Amino acid sequence: MTASGTNRDSGTAGGTWTAAWELLLPAAGAPARGRGRALQSALRDAVRSGRLTAGTRLPSSRELALDLGVSRGLVTEAYEQLTAEGYLRSGRGAGTWVSEAVRSAAPPRARDLAPRGPGALVDFRAGTPDLSLFPRTTWAAAHRSALDGLPHRALGYPDPRGLPELRTALAGLLGRRRGVAADPERIVVCSGVAQALTLVAQVLRGRGLSQVAVEDPGSPEHGALFEAAGLTASPVPLDDEGPSLSSLERSGARLVVTTPAHQFPTGMAVTPARRAGLLAWARAVDGYVVEDDYDGDFRYDRAPVGALQGLDPERVIYTGSVSKSLAPGLRLGWLAAPSALAAELAGRKRTTDLGNAALDQAALAEMVTSGAYDRQLRRCGRAYRERRDVLVAELEEHFPGTRISGIAAGLHIIARLPERYGPEPGFLARARRAGVELRSLADYRTGQESAVPPDAAELSGGRGAVHLVLGYAHLAPSAIAHGVRLLAHAVRTSSP
Amino acid sequence: MTASGTNRDSGTAGGTWTAAWELLLPAAGAPARGRGRALQSALRDAVRSGRLTAGTRLPSSRELALDLGVSRGLVTEAYEQLTAEGYLRSGRGAGTWVSEAVRSAAPPRARDLAPRGPGALVDFRAGTPDLSLFPRTTWAAAHRSALDGLPHRALGYPDPRGLPELRTALAGLLGRRRGVAADPERIVVCSGVAQALTLVAQVLRGRGLSQVAVEDPGSPEHGALFEAAGLTASPVPLDDEGPSLSSLERSGARLVVTTPAHQFPTGMAVTPARRAGLLAWARAVDGYVVEDDYDGDFRYDRAPVGALQGLDPERVIYTGSVSKSLAPGLRLGWLAAPSALAAELAGRKRTTDLGNAALDQAALAEMVTSGAYDRQLRRCGRAYRERRDVLVAELEEHFPGTRISGIAAGLHIIARLPERYGPEPGFLARARRAGVELRSLADYRTGQESAVPPDAAELSGGRGAVHLVLGYAHLAPSAIAHGVRLLAHAVRTSSP
Repeated sequence: MTASGTNRDSGTAGGTWTAAWELLLPAAGAPARGRGRALQSALRDAVRSGRLTAGTRLPSSRELALDLGVSRGLVTEAYEQLTAEGYLRSGRGAGTWVSEAVRSAAPPRARDLAPRGPGALVDFRAGTPDLSLFPRTTWAAAHRSALDGLPHRALGYPDPRGLPELRTALAGLLGRRRGVAADPERIVVCSGVAQALTLVAQVLRGRGLSQVAVEDPGSPEHGALFEAAGLTASPVPLDDEGPSLSSLERSGARLVVTTPAHQFPTGMAVTPARRAGLLAWARAVDGYVVEDDYDGDFRYDRAPVGALQGLDPERVIYTGSVSKSLAPGLRLGWLAAPSALAAELAGRKRTTDLGNAALDQAALAEMVTSGAYDRQLRRCGRAYRERRDVLVAELEEHFPGTRISGIAAGLHIIARLPERYGPEPGFLARARRAGVELRSLADYRTGQESAVPPDAAELSGGRGAVHLVLGYAHLAPSAIAHGVRLLAHAVRTSSP
Repeated sequence: MTASGTNRDSGTAGGTWTAAWELLLPAAGAPARGRGRALQSALRDAVRSGRLTAGTRLPSSRELALDLGVSRGLVTEAYEQLTAEGYLRSGRGAGTWVSEAVRSAAPPRARDLAPRGPGALVDFRAGTPDLSLFPRTTWAAAHRSALDGLPHRALGYPDPRGLPELRTALAGLLGRRRGVAADPERIVVCSGVAQALTLVAQVLRGRGLSQVAVEDPGSPEHGALFEAAGLTASPVPLDDEGPSLSSLERSGARLVVTTPAHQFPTGMAVTPARRAGLLAWARAVDGYVVEDDYDGDFRYDRAPVGALQGLDPERVIYTGSVSKSLAPGLRLGWLAAPSALAAELAGRKRTTDLGNAALDQAALAEMVTSGAYDRQLRRCGRAYRERRDVLVAELEEHFPGTRISGIAAGLHIIARLPERYGPEPGFLARARRAGVELRSLADYRTGQESAVPPDAAELSGGRGAVHLVLGYAHLAPSAIAHGVRLLAHAVRTSSP
């Protein structure tokens, strides 16, 4: 603010701008080294914001330099730069004008896309693991080791299918833990199950499919995800064995997404007969089954049921991720593809994003081969089993008569509270008022019809029952107990 | 192999299997703890591979346990597990059969999807930075610091637009270095420019667009990328100012992808008039310009020309990445979106992959805010400028009369060798035989017509000229010199 304070009147049209140049130049007092860039930036902002309007003639470089007490070269350079960029234009003779081409950004709207922060006292919504169990030290060590060990070329554009080391490690892991018939050449590393489903949908849409059958109840995300990929999602209700085969046949779809190891959200395991039925259906329609093995690593009463994919690797596309075992924020998952689809899926992955980030892949490969990943699964499994036990015990104590349906697995349960706690809308309102966030099974309905979910059918005592989907994995045992007690208190004391 | 070696004949149909069970059970000698799992795994493999065919009746658990010298419980458990998974089925009475549902994977095909490894002595193909300049120590420190500093919840499902800290850091960086009118609320962090283009194409296809105009010559990837996203790419030839406006108007497209700071591959800077013309076109057709600022950070003769986006943030979608400044293997990029598209682009990013990995985002934010990213850009800029100078000097010495076209920027040059080195096919064949990998400008043609690229038009001495696209950034100065000399030697000594 030194020389610009002299306010010298140059005797031209530029003179009327003298005061404005001061505003334009908070940079005049900047260190000499950054002054040129500051001047350019200030001019750009002035044009963009409309403080300098289109068609305005700028003072000559000599005049402006005098006004601002900077060197003329600095001004000339700024004019040249902004002319090259299109903010200013030079006339046929001498002279520099503000360009007519410039438009400013529209003002930001209030709307916020960010996910809502946690407002509730206890949040039983399912889907997130305990993020405090993420093994930061182990991951950091694996990452550092990967960074030290990777050759330079591994930092270049990746194999779109994923780092060979990781695909080999995953083939071993999935074969060993989940009974997947995995060949590293047919594994595609991706950003998680959502991306895997998108890739599958896009490839099969390219082969003429227009529909995908989804479980009802099932993931509420499927509708939007498949719509974005160009497929219509047709809900297929569950019966007491799994996705209804007759509905599947009627749907006309040639692709079904299913969660056979632990159906989401009902928690049932698809029966052996229905597993065979799904495969027979896929062969009959020349279609595919997508097996979303979202929490297949966590079973507490026995060894997890192996993957459906192992029964027919040419008809089942298997997919999973580290979202439940490590953290969703890593955005790292995989699919094991039938040989007829592997190349196209890899090609789609390539056109989508050219492949996953190399370092995280190398770090995960390191964790899998060192055994650290198995240790992490055991650690999470122990914690989640304890939490499930606490939740079940608390429900039994505070909501006597509650029935827990589904197998002892995963990160959530389905609880059916006795009729005296219903009807459901009133219960949910009271829970909300008590600061307990939870979801009803009805929130996972993907279809319009009122098909009754399997365990509900078996257990239902009438329309008054309250069916809750309660996620427990992300909550400490004390928080689980607290949440159930808050609920019990709310039910006792508040009116619906 | 202890008890199974007794080869006891149980006196039933199982007896014919006795030898087979030995083959099935490399696990009988396994430590007792892992024996159950090994048995299950071996049975699964036997069914899958067809060694146990569909409909085969298995021996009773008692018989098999005796045969194998393991406890009966182990066998019962294995039968139960494989029945639940669908490999085996139980009959109505007693008995266990191999299921008819199982199919094995098709044998792997010889075809390999992996990118070809470097076979050439010197590889002048453009597109990759010097991966040895990746600042491993700095990145590791930033990653570690990010890991230490991130709250647990940042490891959960991310904001699909990207980590707020990174979007804020990028808005500052892009505004400061590239003149981008950036608002953190309108930045979407993505996996790189390829994904940004895919997201844009998908969103605009959803709004009824069916075409996208691309520069010709231009990126050879555009055709497949946009086809995968459902748009037809219409090549627009360049004239001596930039993409031809009359061709653009004739194309009927309402979306154009351009590289105004340093056109790829010709190296020209789009003129100020054409920049304004592109914006006027976008407004007239109610369309959009995608500005791919792929190497806008590297200009060696003057400050880089600022981004086109700054002139009209509501008509230009700006995109860039760390692929040239850090490493393509990080798969980390961004786009700055007009307000009318920001929410939809973020929504598409969400349905595509739910967002980028959190830790890498935090590490990049850390590098940007600490100034380490600017230092990296300066470091690369110095190295690449030196390499460009070496390449130009070597070409002048060994291929006198060669004209370098395009501005002094980026990671590659266009070199037009005098006619005496042509015609081009013979030159390229000799280069290949000499172990020098390179591309002709003709390889970047995206259209069918024989439009002459701008500098070529200016410089062309006839059809015999050799037009090369030479990437230099990834090569040490000595390798550059070696490559040019190899070429010169090949031209002197070998027949075409």
